[in-house]
Amino acid sequence: MKNNFLYNYIGKVLIGLSMIFVFPEIVALIYNESVIPFFIPQLICLIFGLPIIALLGKKEDSVNTKFGIKTVAILWIIVSVVGALPLTINNDATYINALFETVSGFTTTGATIFKNVETLNKSILFWRSLTNFIGGMGILALVIAIIPLSKSNKSMEDFKTDLPGPNAFKRLSGIKKTFIYLFGIYFFLTILETVLLLCGGLKLFDSLLISMGTAGTGGFSVLNSSLESYPIFCKYVVAIFMFLFGINFNIYLLICIKDFKRVLKSEELCAYIFIFIISTIILYINTLPIIKDTKQTVLQSVFNVSSLITGTGYRIGSINEFYTTSRVVCLILMLIGGCVGSTCGGIKISRMLISIKSIKRNLIKKFQPNIDDSVKFDGEKLSEETVKGTNTFILIYLLLILLLVFIVAHDKYSLEITINAVVSTISNVGLCFDITDFANFSNFSKLVLSFGMLCGRLELFPVISLFVNDKNE
Amino acid sequence: MKNNFLYNYIGKVLIGLSMIFVFPEIVALIYNESVIPFFIPQLICLIFGLPIIALLGKKEDSVNTKFGIKTVAILWIIVSVVGALPLTINNDATYINALFETVSGFTTTGATIFKNVETLNKSILFWRSLTNFIGGMGILALVIAIIPLSKSNKSMEDFKTDLPGPNAFKRLSGIKKTFIYLFGIYFFLTILETVLLLCGGLKLFDSLLISMGTAGTGGFSVLNSSLESYPIFCKYVVAIFMFLFGINFNIYLLICIKDFKRVLKSEELCAYIFIFIISTIILYINTLPIIKDTKQTVLQSVFNVSSLITGTGYRIGSINEFYTTSRVVCLILMLIGGCVGSTCGGIKISRMLISIKSIKRNLIKKFQPNIDDSVKFDGEKLSEETVKGTNTFILIYLLLILLLVFIVAHDKYSLEITINAVVSTISNVGLCFDITDFANFSNFSKLVLSFGMLCGRLELFPVISLFVNDKNE
Repeated sequence: MKNNFLYNYIGKVLIGLSMIFVFPEIVALIYNESVIPFFIPQLICLIFGLPIIALLGKKEDSVNTKFGIKTVAILWIIVSVVGALPLTINNDATYINALFETVSGFTTTGATIFKNVETLNKSILFWRSLTNFIGGMGILALVIAIIPLSKSNKSMEDFKTDLPGPNAFKRLSGIKKTFIYLFGIYFFLTILETVLLLCGGLKLFDSLLISMGTAGTGGFSVLNSSLESYPIFCKYVVAIFMFLFGINFNIYLLICIKDFKRVLKSEELCAYIFIFIISTIILYINTLPIIKDTKQTVLQSVFNVSSLITGTGYRIGSINEFYTTSRVVCLILMLIGGCVGSTCGGIKISRMLISIKSIKRNLIKKFQPNIDDSVKFDGEKLSEETVKGTNTFILIYLLLILLLVFIVAHDKYSLEITINAVVSTISNVGLCFDITDFANFSNFSKLVLSFGMLCGRLELFPVISLFVNDKNE
Repeated sequence: MKNNFLYNYIGKVLIGLSMIFVFPEIVALIYNESVIPFFIPQLICLIFGLPIIALLGKKEDSVNTKFGIKTVAILWIIVSVVGALPLTINNDATYINALFETVSGFTTTGATIFKNVETLNKSILFWRSLTNFIGGMGILALVIAIIPLSKSNKSMEDFKTDLPGPNAFKRLSGIKKTFIYLFGIYFFLTILETVLLLCGGLKLFDSLLISMGTAGTGGFSVLNSSLESYPIFCKYVVAIFMFLFGINFNIYLLICIKDFKRVLKSEELCAYIFIFIISTIILYINTLPIIKDTKQTVLQSVFNVSSLITGTGYRIGSINEFYTTSRVVCLILMLIGGCVGSTCGGIKISRMLISIKSIKRNLIKKFQPNIDDSVKFDGEKLSEETVKGTNTFILIYLLLILLLVFIVAHDKYSLEITINAVVSTISNVGLCFDITDFANFSNFSKLVLSFGMLCGRLELFPVISLFVNDKNE
């Protein structure tokens, strides 16, 4: 019964993936490249997917939602395992490298193992950016549509450690309408960015791929210098769109339905803008002595803050020359991440706010024991469970970073690079100071970092659930 | 009324300090050095202290314990401010440097600003090590005698975020008897170490100072190479005594009163030994390719783990050649620290255990909601308040590290050194990879790091209480 549910979804996802492979195939045909690298995995998807669907039909077994969460983690892994095939078949990378690259793509991390992306086939470049784009859709579907909308399902409540704040999509009736609005906004913003980049003088191929990388806050790029060689206008466009994709998508729906009052009331949005401005100012002051040009410094500060807080990981300028203060700010931005309900990685601003409020509450309570001790967020009282869950999340997140730093340290990179690489992958950023690619890490470290990306992307619990024996399943 | 309490204690401490200055004066006389550097602050102590005592007498106002906690923080600062004078008067250091050194001494950190300690007067060296020794006594008195024994005082409960585990001193009747036992054990261990070092061939002066530095887990040393040039036997003696001073002093009392059952039941002690062994093994495996000599590697691994987990900070060998894995292990040891109720710094093992247990509990509860959800420690159920307080402590500790790293980063040391220096000071270790002294940090950073040492030493809340306006006082 439970296995039916899992197999059913595996079948559906494989069929879906086989259809998605059509897009890079079209690109391959346009650029006169081989379609074989995509055709083989496509075939594999169909060979395994069709029988499953045929045997199980459209039976939608209702299962314990925790099992559903487990399924999500398994699906993410299967998609990555299959999605890595084109890179290996095309002889661009070993399978471990290809897997790292694809996990990095689907988790919208954007960390790459390629020293030189400019020699890759256009279709392969397209496939990389498409994984960013699809990964973004996947995570949006998960955190906005699937988890919060199944509120009627009581067992799902346990996984809601993070979702106070506006939940505008709940007002739409039905999951279908939710998906239409959600992906409508996602596609609209992506197309808008593509058009603007075209206006800025970029080729259609570059515009589309950069926009897909922005949408998923992934950050796979088309050139070795990331976005450095593009016109200033395009850099600002990308900076702004990275920022926009870092906002909770509920906010956009609130704007669509003209509920501006709740938009302005969103504490997370205010904090996001506040952190953005403060970090930009600090980066500006701290990098002006290096860059020397005022306009360039403004551009680089805005761009880098936008790229790091959203976990996109596009690069301009030479961040490796940054002073320690800037590096600390960058690392903190990676760690915090953007808003809940966006495609960003990291701990997320809501969680940081709730945690800080709970710390403040606990401190004040020490000195004024009789005070009202509830933690409020967006004007609503939070349950103690939510507060506890949030702090647990943050502590596990930090412990995971420590654990991965310990493991990856074995590669004998400096402690700074090691910490940076681990935070960058777990927070789905993909950018690391002092190294441009992850090729030289050992295979074992690459697998460990891939695991970290998956943990960060799925917000820990689905991955942990794979290791927990659930007696109530 | 409240001010009477504060002034009364300030008076007492000043008088006490004036008496303590007699010891370095004796050393100065023995070695034919000037007593002026100690005589002036002694005079200042008497001039300010005597009138206060004379005016207020022995009135022991009973006050809100939170105010008592504030008083402790203020006293620690005053003692450091006065204790720094000898170094400045003797022209050994600027006042900021002297203050850093003295805060480092009284907080038992052991971070030094001296590139060359071998040119310092014997009496100055003695005074530095004495601050380590006194600091250790102070913190033991605070965490074992003063806070836990005032359990009858309900308001003190709020500060007990950390004290499950054995509390053997409570069985003694009266605070006087407690102090006798507590300091009896402290002096006994110190003298025993001194005798053993003498047997190992060290001079009395070195033996005494090294032992005082070990007792307070401070780590000020007499030679520039720390303990490197001493005989192997002495290195092992120090390693063992550092380990012993990292154990909860309640355990020693339990041994005195022959309650071995509770000693063996102590989860913290087991974890302490476990962490010690595991870290030693990892360090051994990871440093053998560098040191090459098996015996040397064993010695260095045992010594360094002992020095770092207890926050002593004595050095042997060249830790700067350590691979990244060893550095990560060292950083984690610094962060964890030793047992509650010892002179160690760091988060403390009990807190780590409680936090990990609570994380595990919260995770299991997600999958098995009906399970008994209390966190147990040493067989006793902990209140939710204790668990919440522990996690709050850890989060504040980490936030403080982040804040100080951001501030100290302005000095443009590498991120690795910056993180290392901050963790080392907040956790009262005093040892920092790749630099031997803190002289080159800016004055501002030195003050900030001094603040960090104080926060770490007093376990955050007393220092925070200085900034909180308590309406109930």
